[in-house]
Amino acid sequence: MLSFESDYNNGAHPLILKKLVETNDLQSLTYGFDQWSESAREKIRIATECPNASVFFLNGGTQTNMTVIDGCLQSYEAVIAVETGHINVHESSAIEFTGHKVIALPHHSGKMSAEDLERFMQLFEADSSREHLAIPGMVYITFPTELGTVYTKKEIEDIYNICKRYDLMLFVDGARLGYGLMVDNSGVTLPWLSQHCDVFYIGGTKVGALCGEAVVFPRGNAPKHFFNIIKRHGALSAKGRTIGIQFDTLFSDNLYFNIAKHAITLAMRLKKTLQNKGYKFFIDSPTNQQFVVLPNDKIQQLSEKVEFTIWEPFDEKSKVCRFVTSWATTKEQMKELEMLL
Amino acid sequence: MLSFESDYNNGAHPLILKKLVETNDLQSLTYGFDQWSESAREKIRIATECPNASVFFLNGGTQTNMTVIDGCLQSYEAVIAVETGHINVHESSAIEFTGHKVIALPHHSGKMSAEDLERFMQLFEADSSREHLAIPGMVYITFPTELGTVYTKKEIEDIYNICKRYDLMLFVDGARLGYGLMVDNSGVTLPWLSQHCDVFYIGGTKVGALCGEAVVFPRGNAPKHFFNIIKRHGALSAKGRTIGIQFDTLFSDNLYFNIAKHAITLAMRLKKTLQNKGYKFFIDSPTNQQFVVLPNDKIQQLSEKVEFTIWEPFDEKSKVCRFVTSWATTKEQMKELEMLL
Amino acid sequence: MLSFESDYNNGAHPLILKKLVETNDLQSLTYGFDQWSESAREKIRIATECPNASVFFLNGGTQTNMTVIDGCLQSYEAVIAVETGHINVHESSAIEFTGHKVIALPHHSGKMSAEDLERFMQLFEADSSREHLAIPGMVYITFPTELGTVYTKKEIEDIYNICKRYDLMLFVDGARLGYGLMVDNSGVTLPWLSQHCDVFYIGGTKVGALCGEAVVFPRGNAPKHFFNIIKRHGALSAKGRTIGIQFDTLFSDNLYFNIAKHAITLAMRLKKTLQNKGYKFFIDSPTNQQFVVLPNDKIQQLSEKVEFTIWEPFDEKSKVCRFVTSWATTKEQMKELEMLL
Amino acid sequence: MLSFESDYNNGAHPLILKKLVETNDLQSLTYGFDQWSESAREKIRIATECPNASVFFLNGGTQTNMTVIDGCLQSYEAVIAVETGHINVHESSAIEFTGHKVIALPHHSGKMSAEDLERFMQLFEADSSREHLAIPGMVYITFPTELGTVYTKKEIEDIYNICKRYDLMLFVDGARLGYGLMVDNSGVTLPWLSQHCDVFYIGGTKVGALCGEAVVFPRGNAPKHFFNIIKRHGALSAKGRTIGIQFDTLFSDNLYFNIAKHAITLAMRLKKTLQNKGYKFFIDSPTNQQFVVLPNDKIQQLSEKVEFTIWEPFDEKSKVCRFVTSWATTKEQMKELEMLL
Repeated sequence: MLSFESDYNNGAHPLILKKLVETNDLQSLTYGFDQWSESAREKIRIATECPNASVFFLNGGTQTNMTVIDGCLQSYEAVIAVETGHINVHESSAIEFTGHKVIALPHHSGKMSAEDLERFMQLFEADSSREHLAIPGMVYITFPTELGTVYTKKEIEDIYNICKRYDLMLFVDGARLGYGLMVDNSGVTLPWLSQHCDVFYIGGTKVGALCGEAVVFPRGNAPKHFFNIIKRHGALSAKGRTIGIQFDTLFSDNLYFNIAKHAITLAMRLKKTLQNKGYKFFIDSPTNQQFVVLPNDKIQQLSEKVEFTIWEPFDEKSKVCRFVTSWATTKEQMKELEMLL
Repeated sequence: MLSFESDYNNGAHPLILKKLVETNDLQSLTYGFDQWSESAREKIRIATECPNASVFFLNGGTQTNMTVIDGCLQSYEAVIAVETGHINVHESSAIEFTGHKVIALPHHSGKMSAEDLERFMQLFEADSSREHLAIPGMVYITFPTELGTVYTKKEIEDIYNICKRYDLMLFVDGARLGYGLMVDNSGVTLPWLSQHCDVFYIGGTKVGALCGEAVVFPRGNAPKHFFNIIKRHGALSAKGRTIGIQFDTLFSDNLYFNIAKHAITLAMRLKKTLQNKGYKFFIDSPTNQQFVVLPNDKIQQLSEKVEFTIWEPFDEKSKVCRFVTSWATTKEQMKELEMLL
Repeated sequence: MLSFESDYNNGAHPLILKKLVETNDLQSLTYGFDQWSESAREKIRIATECPNASVFFLNGGTQTNMTVIDGCLQSYEAVIAVETGHINVHESSAIEFTGHKVIALPHHSGKMSAEDLERFMQLFEADSSREHLAIPGMVYITFPTELGTVYTKKEIEDIYNICKRYDLMLFVDGARLGYGLMVDNSGVTLPWLSQHCDVFYIGGTKVGALCGEAVVFPRGNAPKHFFNIIKRHGALSAKGRTIGIQFDTLFSDNLYFNIAKHAITLAMRLKKTLQNKGYKFFIDSPTNQQFVVLPNDKIQQLSEKVEFTIWEPFDEKSKVCRFVTSWATTKEQMKELEMLL
Repeated sequence: MLSFESDYNNGAHPLILKKLVETNDLQSLTYGFDQWSESAREKIRIATECPNASVFFLNGGTQTNMTVIDGCLQSYEAVIAVETGHINVHESSAIEFTGHKVIALPHHSGKMSAEDLERFMQLFEADSSREHLAIPGMVYITFPTELGTVYTKKEIEDIYNICKRYDLMLFVDGARLGYGLMVDNSGVTLPWLSQHCDVFYIGGTKVGALCGEAVVFPRGNAPKHFFNIIKRHGALSAKGRTIGIQFDTLFSDNLYFNIAKHAITLAMRLKKTLQNKGYKFFIDSPTNQQFVVLPNDKIQQLSEKVEFTIWEPFDEKSKVCRFVTSWATTKEQMKELEMLL
């Protein structure tokens, strides 16, 4: 059965497995002090052009979000996200578990608008009872978003300027960062992003790794005792090399970017195919998640041979369906899908 | 450089890597619904002789402890452990992060005594101000303990009977479970343990896996919505297959037990060597962690060629040192160490 | 200066002070086991016609909300409120501090609609990823609402039926309960309310007391160890008599209802005056909070002699203003205000 | 029935009630911005000789402890107390509820020793795995202690010097502060204490008030947004005047000190009587809590006419009993008790 259900339904990129095998018998230090983690951190510092960056390896997305948000905020502070933000919807209230409110702004195709953020902060500052409100301390955005869209450079700049003006940290959830960076002509690069937020993470689980996310504080601006914070969130890997080796591989020879580019190329091909066949899109996505409106009978028929996600009802006769390509999707699989559409 | 510093300083057992490679191109469901996780769960049900067991795969030890403890306790309940218990010392107050007090009883070579537990509970019940105290809801023990010792069957039975009498859950931290089960003549087996506690976990990270722990509720007695609880503790693996494949391998052909046995055999050999050389032991450990008292000059000399842990000062002229064997320790490495001792 | 700024800007009803003086030299048990707390609990059981009710006295509103919500919910559960709900806006994210998400539904003049709730729960139940969502465990409504409106019996019944169907607790925040119950012809009485929710509280701070709120579990359905839960939320009064004496007085000779009625009578008189003068209302409130639209120059002029709250801008030339009557408002004060309007 | 059971079993000092009555009809601002709270703050600044002190009024002891500790600590930090410390025993794990571990040192007649603290911190700093431990951020002591003892100036100085050296805040729980300050010849005064800790509170509930504790940050060193922190701990009084008026009265004409002195005088008289009668003391207390060893038959006989606390068994034939005097104890009551002893 073909699967376009997600970008984490394969194993790992073969070069990662190869490296795991090669290094297997070597003994190492633990908790991320091993040579490969050190090497991976250094490669990420180079790729981000941030020689002073602090880099930490965690296991998965929700874990990373809750550790970074709780670790960076004062205990009374809240985080601002759009209503469709992953932390606001699909993390089983993990952020609230750490004691912080998620303040939800409206989304625009999955994105936060600088205008909404500015207006919210103005109202907050002007509110005479603001000490009775949740005090915002951070803005959380995803790149790319849960709906496959990406912010332009201008949009991020505008948000980041507001953040700086109101003393809010800007945190970019990059669970699918590679796919966002490889969007045609976006202009957003790793070094540029590093200059336009306070902390972000480079997603591994969805971009070729068995597991793992790399948290980057670009200016060495991690909170004091962040190692301890990671530990008490249950997010410290005893055998840290498992993730270190993977990121060391992903950041060798441009692997991370190349495999993400591959997924984007196939997604754009799929998009064109769907357009050519006259299907309507739920959202205009330049990334590896494509949201298309399919008639119910087509869905029924496709479902027998392909796995994909039924996102939500569109109207009585059709539904929004999500098709996801990944670093692992093959041209053969794409061809097979196209013949079924 | 030789390393006897820990049992998580190697990669994974080669059969695990082999399986990861073999299955790499197969697409699967996510979040632990993949075929290998399903298969691993079934194999664990067979190995524990608990056909109704609920099995969950998490990433690491501290994460598992905090998720199980917080997930099983009512929000106001506390967990009882010995003062040397991992959760009381080396988890950066992760349990308190989830809102629960760790009540520390004295330890006896790393173990809790049923007498201490009974006395504590009697005092608690008799205290007229007990509604002002932390209310105990669970007992936490480690098997083997942080000091390498193991409980006898009688000791566990006694503790479990007290737990049942006072309506406390018994949770066994099995980060090194394999090594504990393979102790000569202990009589504690996986099926027996499953009958004598309410929840335990089978440690993978320290017994041959890249990462991963398997939580077992032997009678299907997981708390309601435990999946959601795992998620909001940041402990749910999106690519669940990564751990599932590993446990599926570990529980094929007795691998888990065989590799743990290997470590115990080498540890007993080391113990005998140390005894023959006249060294004193800090504690009498039947497991893969050996705590021996070495003179300072010997430590200095050894340190140049071997990594091991200096546990604590013993007297002015000597220190307690920990040597750890693992599934990956080779006979050659052991021979080399012995020649240096 | 006249003040119509809130209903907690006076001291206490004189009969409460009188009772505090009379009982002052008597020694008593502590932590709410004193005779007056016992008596007050019994009087509340009679007033609610709930002989098995469990009644607890806490200090203030936010404290009561967080203790009840956190105490009744499983740690992973969320509470549903309207976006204008006090817990969602004006409690400095105290609910999130206890680890629970506040799920915000749209409000209709401050009220939750049964339709919105039903729709939300249907979507939740139908969502195949619902184990990744926050799991709703409680519905929170205020009576009267933050906008001065009250639910009809039908509206509460509808909500409560949905709650029962989906196994959600219904919690009624009664910080201003007395004023809500005294609304003309609402039909909602204390016994009726007790039959149509799972827990509610009778506000004292805003209805004649120096401090204090009485939490009622009508069917003795308090969570296990609720005393302990209160204590660990910092909400247990060592000198419990301070609140007990006040509620014992408020529930003698119908005092609580009479003084609330007084406030409603004056509020309706104010409403009529405002209507007669042709002012527009922001919302049609039958309770002691009146929200009226005043021209900016009128506001300016009034502000010199009266304290009231500027709620929000209405248009360029006018603002919504809130005037609050209370048990302590005198006819003379009302007359004075009317002459200024 | 006579009661020497606690110092919070009476109402309030008559002057407090008088002031509550006098001010009752005046309208005021809310949330502690009323004139009496302002006046009380100013009087406390004068009494502490700290013109820049930040003063906050909370309701009760556990609430104050959890709000101050959680408010001042970073989320990952722990608080150090002695094992008998109120926060470690009798607060239903309220501190852990806020996410912080209580690290328990041995007690010496209820007191922490500077030596123990120094040794603990040295071990912590020397521990190579200290990032896996709970990180200490504060020291908590009680004055007087739970066992009625008081620290000497030298003892507090020594502790405070260690705190400063290791960057720990020193927090003094003054639930019974008045009684401690009035101990004969202790030399500890309010201004002196203010110079020798970072935050403390002046207990009202046990020293003449209906309720209320005054938190003092002597150098205006309250954490940012402490008002918001108080609110989200449920500790903000809407009708703040209730506590403000009480402290305004307590800090007029030396009332707080005079009534505490009265209790000490009576306690010392009781102590002498007990000594004269040949009873043994469990602990040598200079404050209003006296712990004496009474034979079981005496206890039986006394219990018929006097309320007091049976603290713990002493031997088979006798028990430790606690007798507490307070600001409200009369000479007549004392005489009556003496005749029964």
